[in-house]
Amino acid sequence: MKAYLIAVDGSEVDASREAAVRLFNEDKLLWLDLFDPDDESLAQLSEFLGIHPLATKDAQRFGQRPKIEDYDSFAQVVAYGVHSINEPLVEVHGFYSPHYLVTVRKQDCAAFAEVRATLTQHEGKRPNRLMLLYRLLGELTDGFFPVLSDFDDQIDQLQDAILAKPTDAQLADLFSMKRWLITVRKVITPQRDMIASLVSGVTELPGMTREIERYFRELYDHLIRISDLVDSYRDLLSGSLDSYLSVVSNRLNQVTKQLTIIATIFLPLSFLTGFFGQNFGWMVQRLTSLGVFLGLGIGTEVAAVVLLLWLFRRRGWL
Amino acid sequence: MKAYLIAVDGSEVDASREAAVRLFNEDKLLWLDLFDPDDESLAQLSEFLGIHPLATKDAQRFGQRPKIEDYDSFAQVVAYGVHSINEPLVEVHGFYSPHYLVTVRKQDCAAFAEVRATLTQHEGKRPNRLMLLYRLLGELTDGFFPVLSDFDDQIDQLQDAILAKPTDAQLADLFSMKRWLITVRKVITPQRDMIASLVSGVTELPGMTREIERYFRELYDHLIRISDLVDSYRDLLSGSLDSYLSVVSNRLNQVTKQLTIIATIFLPLSFLTGFFGQNFGWMVQRLTSLGVFLGLGIGTEVAAVVLLLWLFRRRGWL
Amino acid sequence: MKAYLIAVDGSEVDASREAAVRLFNEDKLLWLDLFDPDDESLAQLSEFLGIHPLATKDAQRFGQRPKIEDYDSFAQVVAYGVHSINEPLVEVHGFYSPHYLVTVRKQDCAAFAEVRATLTQHEGKRPNRLMLLYRLLGELTDGFFPVLSDFDDQIDQLQDAILAKPTDAQLADLFSMKRWLITVRKVITPQRDMIASLVSGVTELPGMTREIERYFRELYDHLIRISDLVDSYRDLLSGSLDSYLSVVSNRLNQVTKQLTIIATIFLPLSFLTGFFGQNFGWMVQRLTSLGVFLGLGIGTEVAAVVLLLWLFRRRGWL
Amino acid sequence: MKAYLIAVDGSEVDASREAAVRLFNEDKLLWLDLFDPDDESLAQLSEFLGIHPLATKDAQRFGQRPKIEDYDSFAQVVAYGVHSINEPLVEVHGFYSPHYLVTVRKQDCAAFAEVRATLTQHEGKRPNRLMLLYRLLGELTDGFFPVLSDFDDQIDQLQDAILAKPTDAQLADLFSMKRWLITVRKVITPQRDMIASLVSGVTELPGMTREIERYFRELYDHLIRISDLVDSYRDLLSGSLDSYLSVVSNRLNQVTKQLTIIATIFLPLSFLTGFFGQNFGWMVQRLTSLGVFLGLGIGTEVAAVVLLLWLFRRRGWL
Amino acid sequence: MKAYLIAVDGSEVDASREAAVRLFNEDKLLWLDLFDPDDESLAQLSEFLGIHPLATKDAQRFGQRPKIEDYDSFAQVVAYGVHSINEPLVEVHGFYSPHYLVTVRKQDCAAFAEVRATLTQHEGKRPNRLMLLYRLLGELTDGFFPVLSDFDDQIDQLQDAILAKPTDAQLADLFSMKRWLITVRKVITPQRDMIASLVSGVTELPGMTREIERYFRELYDHLIRISDLVDSYRDLLSGSLDSYLSVVSNRLNQVTKQLTIIATIFLPLSFLTGFFGQNFGWMVQRLTSLGVFLGLGIGTEVAAVVLLLWLFRRRGWL
Repeated sequence: MKAYLIAVDGSEVDASREAAVRLFNEDKLLWLDLFDPDDESLAQLSEFLGIHPLATKDAQRFGQRPKIEDYDSFAQVVAYGVHSINEPLVEVHGFYSPHYLVTVRKQDCAAFAEVRATLTQHEGKRPNRLMLLYRLLGELTDGFFPVLSDFDDQIDQLQDAILAKPTDAQLADLFSMKRWLITVRKVITPQRDMIASLVSGVTELPGMTREIERYFRELYDHLIRISDLVDSYRDLLSGSLDSYLSVVSNRLNQVTKQLTIIATIFLPLSFLTGFFGQNFGWMVQRLTSLGVFLGLGIGTEVAAVVLLLWLFRRRGWL
Repeated sequence: MKAYLIAVDGSEVDASREAAVRLFNEDKLLWLDLFDPDDESLAQLSEFLGIHPLATKDAQRFGQRPKIEDYDSFAQVVAYGVHSINEPLVEVHGFYSPHYLVTVRKQDCAAFAEVRATLTQHEGKRPNRLMLLYRLLGELTDGFFPVLSDFDDQIDQLQDAILAKPTDAQLADLFSMKRWLITVRKVITPQRDMIASLVSGVTELPGMTREIERYFRELYDHLIRISDLVDSYRDLLSGSLDSYLSVVSNRLNQVTKQLTIIATIFLPLSFLTGFFGQNFGWMVQRLTSLGVFLGLGIGTEVAAVVLLLWLFRRRGWL
Repeated sequence: MKAYLIAVDGSEVDASREAAVRLFNEDKLLWLDLFDPDDESLAQLSEFLGIHPLATKDAQRFGQRPKIEDYDSFAQVVAYGVHSINEPLVEVHGFYSPHYLVTVRKQDCAAFAEVRATLTQHEGKRPNRLMLLYRLLGELTDGFFPVLSDFDDQIDQLQDAILAKPTDAQLADLFSMKRWLITVRKVITPQRDMIASLVSGVTELPGMTREIERYFRELYDHLIRISDLVDSYRDLLSGSLDSYLSVVSNRLNQVTKQLTIIATIFLPLSFLTGFFGQNFGWMVQRLTSLGVFLGLGIGTEVAAVVLLLWLFRRRGWL
Repeated sequence: MKAYLIAVDGSEVDASREAAVRLFNEDKLLWLDLFDPDDESLAQLSEFLGIHPLATKDAQRFGQRPKIEDYDSFAQVVAYGVHSINEPLVEVHGFYSPHYLVTVRKQDCAAFAEVRATLTQHEGKRPNRLMLLYRLLGELTDGFFPVLSDFDDQIDQLQDAILAKPTDAQLADLFSMKRWLITVRKVITPQRDMIASLVSGVTELPGMTREIERYFRELYDHLIRISDLVDSYRDLLSGSLDSYLSVVSNRLNQVTKQLTIIATIFLPLSFLTGFFGQNFGWMVQRLTSLGVFLGLGIGTEVAAVVLLLWLFRRRGWL
Repeated sequence: MKAYLIAVDGSEVDASREAAVRLFNEDKLLWLDLFDPDDESLAQLSEFLGIHPLATKDAQRFGQRPKIEDYDSFAQVVAYGVHSINEPLVEVHGFYSPHYLVTVRKQDCAAFAEVRATLTQHEGKRPNRLMLLYRLLGELTDGFFPVLSDFDDQIDQLQDAILAKPTDAQLADLFSMKRWLITVRKVITPQRDMIASLVSGVTELPGMTREIERYFRELYDHLIRISDLVDSYRDLLSGSLDSYLSVVSNRLNQVTKQLTIIATIFLPLSFLTGFFGQNFGWMVQRLTSLGVFLGLGIGTEVAAVVLLLWLFRRRGWL
């Protein structure tokens, strides 16, 4: 377990249990960020801060959907961030009250370091605990944009690769991209709805002002955009799968046409060749001069080829 | 018929009609769990407890959707659990009132034994009848998670198998997996909505407190997650079917290309072979030295192969 | 036209105009069931009972959607039943008021005979006109269950048949099954919504009590189950169509592979055969001993076959 | 421009500007029906009747969605009718007030002549302006039924034709049928919603009574049925496209199987033929009697054919 | 940075900071249109006009969804226009208050020049700031119609091209058309909803009157039409992709049939040819007269061809 403890004046305090207790008792605890805590410590902390066992159990188990649960003395917030396409999404559990913000997570995520840096390095007015929660949710959410933009490029590259040369590996890519997108959508939709419930006033957080609400509305807007992006990538991916099939079929068509042309030319020629040459001693014995060789032998072949070419051209195959 | 009878102090009483009547009259009946009762006994019990004939008929017939029906003196609860992927879902009918909880089922399910064990073995405070109902519904619902997780693995294995080598048996698997998923969805959606109606206060159960509601809200959250999982598996299965078709088409394409290459090489060669060898005595008689054999005979073949290879390479087939 | 007339005491009266008028005037008319009446008689009856011309016109024309229209003095009810998969759905028009229940239909349906039998044969309390309407709607609705269960079996059989051997006839079956399902859905959805509007109190019928409403709620539940079944069959049918295509493609793949193997073996062999045998007198004249025949002739063939088999095995074709 | 002018007593008046002005001033103007008026005349009329410039501009431009806009002194109604499958839908703009009904259209449509005929020929009570609007909308809407019924037949014929022999022309038909259906749906959905807003009281028209509302409710019902029909045809069309692909694939499968059988029989036979006949002088010189010809020559061929037939039968190909 | 400054009397003033400040102080500032301003200037302007930092940041960053945000002293409006199919959509940020309308954009768009021209050239009453906002949004929105009409033609051309001859390039076109359509839909849907929120009164703009609302309702109608168009093009595009696959499959079918016919004719003929000519010296030596050549040689070939033609005709292949 690793922990970061920040006081309301922005100073980072060494994270020990005593320090946290002291800050809390002086109402100077701004943010306690726990990285992969053991169940025991979490349970003790929860009891100390008066966090409901159900919320604690969620934070021990993880695997929750994004949600805001309003317990009377605090609010439980579950939200997700993203690190990169290849890693699982980052689940964050937060406990917010007017007197503290506690976050619990099991993976690292750029959002945390950034928010911490802004808090401790910048001079001037410190945010209150709700603005801090907004910033954290905002950084977690905005982290999806660059990753989705990469995903967008990946779709384009895949589509180009499919049009160039369809392979089985592309199908495996499509499947795993679809799976990732489903994972993101399963998280982004409730995250959007949870912010919507905040903005529309269905869920209320202590300390919310009209000014702070504007910021959450901005966040809501970003979540809608992400959700729209995810939906459109879904559409494009299924379009890519369809065009894969179409490209393959078209290639097959051309290959088979090629095969048919070859067979239509050479099977009859081989037959003609065999017929005039092998069958009857009578004929073979009489076709012995150079002129007959050139006229009848080469002549029939050339005539057949010309006829077939004319037929192909009329059918638009050449 | 088998039955389990548990008193409010957590003690398991031998389940006879007399014992149940006695406990009920003393208001000490916590839970009566009936395993595959005959219609007759059920009807008698219903009459004794004042259960409405419509609710009794449902419990005799089975095959109902999950629902909570509020009859004035009791509530009828129908919910589903799962045993394993290969077995049908476990339908459970419950009759809940402030004075009893009666459950009826026709199959066994781990949830029942577990809840019973917790009740009888653990010391300390006994849950009231509503919390018991919550625990039962919770165990039934949470039983879906490991089964769905197995299902998830099964999808991945199927997808890998399809990419490796598509067979007809995989299609049969896909169809039966889809059918199972449809069965689960038909049950989970109304089960989720029934808990939602409890949590939002549309349906009211006697004994519901704000604290107990939190637990039902947690249950609701789990049901949403299951419902999301089912939807995403549906998506993935249909994606697997599409990629099946694509893999097969791609293989077909490669096989046909192979065929075309072979035919494009050897049909012309056979023709050349026949043309120079069979047709005209004039030619055959003049091609009798080793030099001519090497130069003209082997030379034309080699030239044709080189030409074809150059063509294939230009078209990107090799 | 055929008609059935039943008095409030359950006795079946010979259905003449006079009898109906007399019963109605004595307020003893329970149920008048008209089978394929002519427009004239219907118009006269409607005028006598005070039924609105719009409702009468609907009952003359047929082809309506299920609905309950509340005219002030009576309610118009349109509902559908089913006879078997091969026959069109049975449209039933009903006019319900506290003083009569009149039904009009153009096809026969088991539901009518059953309800009539229950009324006239059973002793004891007779249902009032609203419970009679419930029973009729209930029988019409429940008639869908066995037919849909047959349909379910039919889907399974079709799927098995497709996996065994896909034929064009199966596609025709799929199309007509889809068409039938669409017909059922077009009828079941509004029928469900019409009962929902009754149960939720949006539409009110005179004589509705809390107890009778429970029965209609049960009916509503059955209609939801039917509607769920129809949706899932739709899903399975479209899955069957997809697997049809996949099976066919897979078969095609195997056949083409077979063709390719044959061609890849025998086209080169034929070429070798021709090359060494036909081309050059020089060679043919020198290959005249048994040893050469066995060594060179059979040897090259065997070598080629072994090489190809090794290639096929490496590519996983055998 | 052509115009029809009808007075409240049902008499058709010669449609001049003066006549319209006179009837309007005497409040005897029932219906003024303008066929393809020029922008100038329409603008003058609008100014005279006090129609808002926005509504006038819509009627000059056309291409609007069905809608009812309530301007204070009048209501603007846009609705669509149909002439036949091959012609574009008929857009009708109406201006309704308690003192006039003005309709503007650019194409002819049976509905207009029919409503006019009913008005002028039938004796008895004349409808008021709102019932006239209802009749017009009703005729326009009901005109969709026969056209959609033709469309239904067309789908069945197309499906049969596809199962009999799939051609490219059928795909073009499918595409244009889909396009037509989309056009109809784009018009029917808002038309239905506009009547729904009338029936539910969201939009109010002056002169609406409970009795007239029943008629509009009937109209609403017809629009739902049309909308349901359009949705189901959409489903069937996409099913037809899928079965097209399946039929083609199945045919391809059979053709390829045929090809494979032929090749699997005759490529080995040709090889055997060539091997024993061409290769070695030693063998050819020894096979010169009739017995050997019959025994070895014909015998090997027959044996090969019998072997292949046995294989095909075992694989279920014959 | 380029800027256009227009006073309330319609005169275009040279756009300097001083001029803007002066007009604003005299409350004569009608419209300030900024083309690609630098962040610095925008920040200064925002501070001067009292625009909220969140709105300013949006206008600096761009990439927002269409929305109306009501800040107390002004409203932020984000809307999109279109230039042509090949260029990205034109994002416009507007700040509207009763005292000014400021627009910010980074690309040019015909709508701006047109609105400016109408303002400065036409005599008569000048619009107030809200009508100006309407006109701008109206021009931006109506600009979609001609572009979508071109898109419609493009779909038809593509469909015709696919039916004529399917190529890989068409698949790339389909993909990029789908992508463009998704982009448009992502913008049009929120733009429609934002106008809907204005029209329904959910969002209020200062200066809105019932008369101006009519114009916004007209705008809303246009946005619904655009949104309907986009949905139907989506449908048609996916139909085009399906018909692509079907056309390709059908072509493949015909080509393979052709191949099969050729092979079925010539493989047996070649075998017959080889069998009678190559195998046995006994036969070859006896077939030496012209009569035998014509009768047996040509006769067997002709007989085989006639037999095959009869078979093909019976199967409907010719």
